[in-house]
Amino acid sequence: MSIRTVVWGENVHEQKNKVVAGIYPKGMHTCIADALNTDPAIKATTATLQEPEHGLPEQRLAETDVLIWWGHAAHGDVDDKIVERVAEHVWSGMGLLVLHSGHFAKIFKRLMGTPCNLTWREAGERERLWLTSRNHPIAAGLPDHFELENEEMYGEPFGIPEPMETVFVSWFQGGEVFRSGVTYRRGAGNVFYFRPGHETYPTYHDANVQTVLRNAVKWAANPAARIKNPTDAPNVPVETALEPITERGPRLHQDGEEGYR
Amino acid sequence: MSIRTVVWGENVHEQKNKVVAGIYPKGMHTCIADALNTDPAIKATTATLQEPEHGLPEQRLAETDVLIWWGHAAHGDVDDKIVERVAEHVWSGMGLLVLHSGHFAKIFKRLMGTPCNLTWREAGERERLWLTSRNHPIAAGLPDHFELENEEMYGEPFGIPEPMETVFVSWFQGGEVFRSGVTYRRGAGNVFYFRPGHETYPTYHDANVQTVLRNAVKWAANPAARIKNPTDAPNVPVETALEPITERGPRLHQDGEEGYR
Amino acid sequence: MSIRTVVWGENVHEQKNKVVAGIYPKGMHTCIADALNTDPAIKATTATLQEPEHGLPEQRLAETDVLIWWGHAAHGDVDDKIVERVAEHVWSGMGLLVLHSGHFAKIFKRLMGTPCNLTWREAGERERLWLTSRNHPIAAGLPDHFELENEEMYGEPFGIPEPMETVFVSWFQGGEVFRSGVTYRRGAGNVFYFRPGHETYPTYHDANVQTVLRNAVKWAANPAARIKNPTDAPNVPVETALEPITERGPRLHQDGEEGYR
Amino acid sequence: MSIRTVVWGENVHEQKNKVVAGIYPKGMHTCIADALNTDPAIKATTATLQEPEHGLPEQRLAETDVLIWWGHAAHGDVDDKIVERVAEHVWSGMGLLVLHSGHFAKIFKRLMGTPCNLTWREAGERERLWLTSRNHPIAAGLPDHFELENEEMYGEPFGIPEPMETVFVSWFQGGEVFRSGVTYRRGAGNVFYFRPGHETYPTYHDANVQTVLRNAVKWAANPAARIKNPTDAPNVPVETALEPITERGPRLHQDGEEGYR
Repeated sequence: MSIRTVVWGENVHEQKNKVVAGIYPKGMHTCIADALNTDPAIKATTATLQEPEHGLPEQRLAETDVLIWWGHAAHGDVDDKIVERVAEHVWSGMGLLVLHSGHFAKIFKRLMGTPCNLTWREAGERERLWLTSRNHPIAAGLPDHFELENEEMYGEPFGIPEPMETVFVSWFQGGEVFRSGVTYRRGAGNVFYFRPGHETYPTYHDANVQTVLRNAVKWAANPAARIKNPTDAPNVPVETALEPITERGPRLHQDGEEGYR
Repeated sequence: MSIRTVVWGENVHEQKNKVVAGIYPKGMHTCIADALNTDPAIKATTATLQEPEHGLPEQRLAETDVLIWWGHAAHGDVDDKIVERVAEHVWSGMGLLVLHSGHFAKIFKRLMGTPCNLTWREAGERERLWLTSRNHPIAAGLPDHFELENEEMYGEPFGIPEPMETVFVSWFQGGEVFRSGVTYRRGAGNVFYFRPGHETYPTYHDANVQTVLRNAVKWAANPAARIKNPTDAPNVPVETALEPITERGPRLHQDGEEGYR
Repeated sequence: MSIRTVVWGENVHEQKNKVVAGIYPKGMHTCIADALNTDPAIKATTATLQEPEHGLPEQRLAETDVLIWWGHAAHGDVDDKIVERVAEHVWSGMGLLVLHSGHFAKIFKRLMGTPCNLTWREAGERERLWLTSRNHPIAAGLPDHFELENEEMYGEPFGIPEPMETVFVSWFQGGEVFRSGVTYRRGAGNVFYFRPGHETYPTYHDANVQTVLRNAVKWAANPAARIKNPTDAPNVPVETALEPITERGPRLHQDGEEGYR
Repeated sequence: MSIRTVVWGENVHEQKNKVVAGIYPKGMHTCIADALNTDPAIKATTATLQEPEHGLPEQRLAETDVLIWWGHAAHGDVDDKIVERVAEHVWSGMGLLVLHSGHFAKIFKRLMGTPCNLTWREAGERERLWLTSRNHPIAAGLPDHFELENEEMYGEPFGIPEPMETVFVSWFQGGEVFRSGVTYRRGAGNVFYFRPGHETYPTYHDANVQTVLRNAVKWAANPAARIKNPTDAPNVPVETALEPITERGPRLHQDGEEGYR
């Protein structure tokens, strides 16, 4: 069965900025989805900020294996309730890829627990991505390095937690470096942040970038059934303890009572 | 200079529950602070939920090296603004120890980005903590295992990110295990979660537990000057690039413009 | 294409000890291979210490996707040259599962860089494995815990590096805990250590254990082409630098010279 | 009490190469030790390959808090017995800093379990080290980046295990990047690899590099008593089990028998 992927696009600059509209006439999200759909193992659709519930109603997320997130100008317009909904689905097992300026998306900061800040410069300079984890599935088919002739610079220190794995590190023409591809697990969900993708450059038309995205979708997808109620904290009554024990001492909670949250 | 430590206590059950009041007549926070103050390297004071700004005004946090957090019944009463303030201080370099039921405190969930859930049972059963990282500074002076004769059980799966280091794992009489001592770095701040400490048992009077707390305060303290504005994402103008570059291609931002957040 | 798996068995106690021979009349390696072969995605064969080159000639390893290692009484009889050969294949991308007493196998210590020691007791006590990473692919189809009624105890502290992920933690009847399932990446190779499997108990006949092994084979297999010469440290001549640079200052090496090793 | 530090130098090129001898007339090890000794908290001495037991007899290591290792041309001349001795001391709690070409030192490869390979170029190009973990104790007092005008290039992929923490990442003029400062724990020992230090350039005279080394010595030192017999795997007899259990089923080992290794 193909991997059900939703590419979420903020879809703001594509509407307001002629340069961006020229590069991505159908939107960045559509360009990315089209690139994914060249692989028969993936079935990608799109969702945008402007749709009801940002295109991410509960039922759709329940049927999504991997969500891809690109946002920039309108992070603040994303409804906090939708952010929590997405977070719960990640914890339940949905994969999540966060792209470029999505480092400041509410959902990424929510899952990282850190500022996710960095330094930046918009000068169309050369970026060279170096593989730091050879044969990592996200790098399948890629050489040890590849270049993007024009990209926005993101520089260290990058305010993220220490990654589970650092897959790519970028070199920038102006003198900076950046951990460009990093993996995390959050609950049952696989999370991958991938740096490139400034909207005024044709990054998502690049063959190597498209390969990374297809690989990352496959890496992030978890075929296991989604965990129900991923935030539950169930009480285990004394009577059903796996080893026989006798209750001792005082207690706060009455039988069958919920824990505090 | 001594390590300026603030022990934050929810201070609810100590006021409402006779058992808890009997064990901790001056509050759990005071018991913990007293134990820390036996070490001349530490200068501990207390703060509680009921104080203005929960006892954690900006100025006090700025002068705090390590904050210790114990909460249970009233997680929901903690002001979100104070939670964000504490998070920013952690990112800036303040150490944070989260104790027991604090796994569900807003500040812990905020910094972890995961549900932080678990299973639990209040039966006064035996807990045995095993050291999994020998000679870790948090375990200084401790044997390879120690016991608490009466504790609440917390069981795996524990909904946390993979720790930087797992220092303790607990065995429970009723058949469960739990990662009881785990370290993280969040921004410049060292974070340690330590499991024991149910309020109806005299856990914070235990000598080994007190040793862990004193060790953890020393481990978490960062003598470096606090980072100012830990969430800033500064622009690096082309003119000041470390390597000479020439601006190329279109751009979204005007000179001196702030980035989107 | 099915995952080419070799189950390496020391095959000593099966020949010398009646209890072991009774439980595993065809050898533990054959029992494991049979369990793997119930899954059409896996094609498992066996190799033993007694075969020429321990059944692991270069050509066979080159055609092996995942190697499983069980040894106990004869760790010292394994040829150091074969150990290095296996290590190189792991670095090149071959998956490796190390089982039970294999914690002291030369290959595991070689890849971990630590003592890999532990405490132990042979009393046929109950072990209960708890899942610490929900929906991890290695735990697919398993409940949050499962039991082995008779097992050897292994206790913490376990002398391993901090794992990439801790997947299982064991509870033992006699009071110990142990990190029973841990993952690593070494070069391009995925490594999984799984604790259960003392030879005097029927552990590898257990359905849950067999599920873990099948899952772990799939997790460890890397479909990418094996890396050639995984220890090479190539010189990058000035003339072929990716950015134009001019040689400056003195140097030790002449053009075309090999680096020191 | 000051941190007892031994700076181990291969001391080959200082004797054979005029350029190196000119920069480091007393040897690189002495230059490094002198820089450390400007800090009253550190008491540094030196040892070299040419001394009996390479200057690292058992008794000296037992009284060493932190060992620093620089080697290049003569890795193969280091006695395997000394390497094992050093490894055991690291596992017991001795800190270890490995510098530059020490990535291929026997002791580093022994502790990492990976090839530790990389790409390289000797062209005196500019290296810029970026801090990736703000306020990390190893970076105390340093800016977010600093430069070395002439250094050898080391490039990714660097064949190391995923670090506990990545502290520095380097940018090179010729277009490469490298994880230049990485931490590990091996047993009870803290390990830090730091990239700069090619012998034909005056790197160890650089103020920022010296600051890193002093910081790293303090970070690596563990004041706890050294673990005796760090590779022991003790049997826990049934009679002394922490929870009362009765022996069940067959066993391989007789009472008091050693485990297999």
